Amino acid sequence: MRLHSNPASPFGRKVMVSAHELGLAERITVDDHLLSPVEPSAAVIADNPLGKLPTLVLDNGHALYDSRVICEYLDHLAGGNRLFPQAGEARWRTLTLQALGDGMMDAALLARYETFLRPEELRWQAWVEHQKLKVQRGLDWLERNVDQLAEEPDIGSITIGCALGYLDFRFGADKWRDGRARLAAWFARFAARPSMQATTPRQM
Amino acid sequence: MRLHSNPASPFGRKVMVSAHELGLAERITVDDHLLSPVEPSAAVIADNPLGKLPTLVLDNGHALYDSRVICEYLDHLAGGNRLFPQAGEARWRTLTLQALGDGMMDAALLARYETFLRPEELRWQAWVEHQKLKVQRGLDWLERNVDQLAEEPDIGSITIGCALGYLDFRFGADKWRDGRARLAAWFARFAARPSMQATTPRQM
Repeated sequence: MRLHSNPASPFGRKVMVSAHELGLAERITVDDHLLSPVEPSAAVIADNPLGKLPTLVLDNGHALYDSRVICEYLDHLAGGNRLFPQAGEARWRTLTLQALGDGMMDAALLARYETFLRPEELRWQAWVEHQKLKVQRGLDWLERNVDQLAEEPDIGSITIGCALGYLDFRFGADKWRDGRARLAAWFARFAARPSMQATTPRQM
Repeated sequence: MRLHSNPASPFGRKVMVSAHELGLAERITVDDHLLSPVEPSAAVIADNPLGKLPTLVLDNGHALYDSRVICEYLDHLAGGNRLFPQAGEARWRTLTLQALGDGMMDAALLARYETFLRPEELRWQAWVEHQKLKVQRGLDWLERNVDQLAEEPDIGSITIGCALGYLDFRFGADKWRDGRARLAAWFARFAARPSMQATTPRQM
């Protein structure tokens, strides 16, 4: 399998953390691409018309995206119901946690595009503030509900772990740990996992 | 169940089309909210820290989001594997089609925010163009692969139907049907379904 990704992408990291946890990392060849919403990559577009990372290309040539679909596919390949609980209350809770982490990453990426990609004279402060508020409310919710984060990884805790790692990588100055000691303690343990250590974000 | 939504939201429509197809629409009370990324709603935030629509609140008070999670939950409630195929090739293809439709709606919404919400002097033409290119490449892919769109609804075809409906609602001037006769013919049939007719988008 080939994965279109980028070592700075939190969604790409989510796929690779899942692959490591499932014992599938060595079956995936990663093709890293430098791209942005205004500088797409023709190689990625050939497999995914949205031009987004991550996109997984199977050996039969079929492409799967986005990260949610790829992670569930990998889980199935590894026997199923390891990172994704079976239908029932645990599944809806875990999938909603994944949606929270994905939404925090989406908001953080929009804030990043606004402050790094967009020409300086076209930046809108209210947009950045409100995207960051989404992240902060997510963090506050997680601090209150940290017991929902499994110590053993599932797709919920993996996604939240990648979201927090992305905040450290791009928004360290915002000090997300301040006032959130329980979440910080959970992340310190989770970030020590080999799957997280093997996927530390970096600029390409 | 209560659904936080808005009659103009393509993701909210996706949930309600699914509910109609599954025979569950009458069990859902819809609370419509006027909000935007820079004018959040406290009532929505109380159930979803991201403040996003749609969010489903179950009778036990638990909240589920986003649209993918809600639709899969509703499918389970209706017996399971009606809109979401079981694990296997059909599932990955259908979920990737859903991701394509979601990605087209995300791109269209970002183009809409840029051209309606953002102060005029802060608009970036390249951003709008590239978001619209994502939509156009998605449309071109669908025109070439229209056989992947089931005539009977599943979560893939429902999401694509809602994406096309959103383009008609907000970007009619872009004439997406031009040069895409097969996709236009598919949508004409799909849009005639009672589930689609009952959920025509409108400004609140």
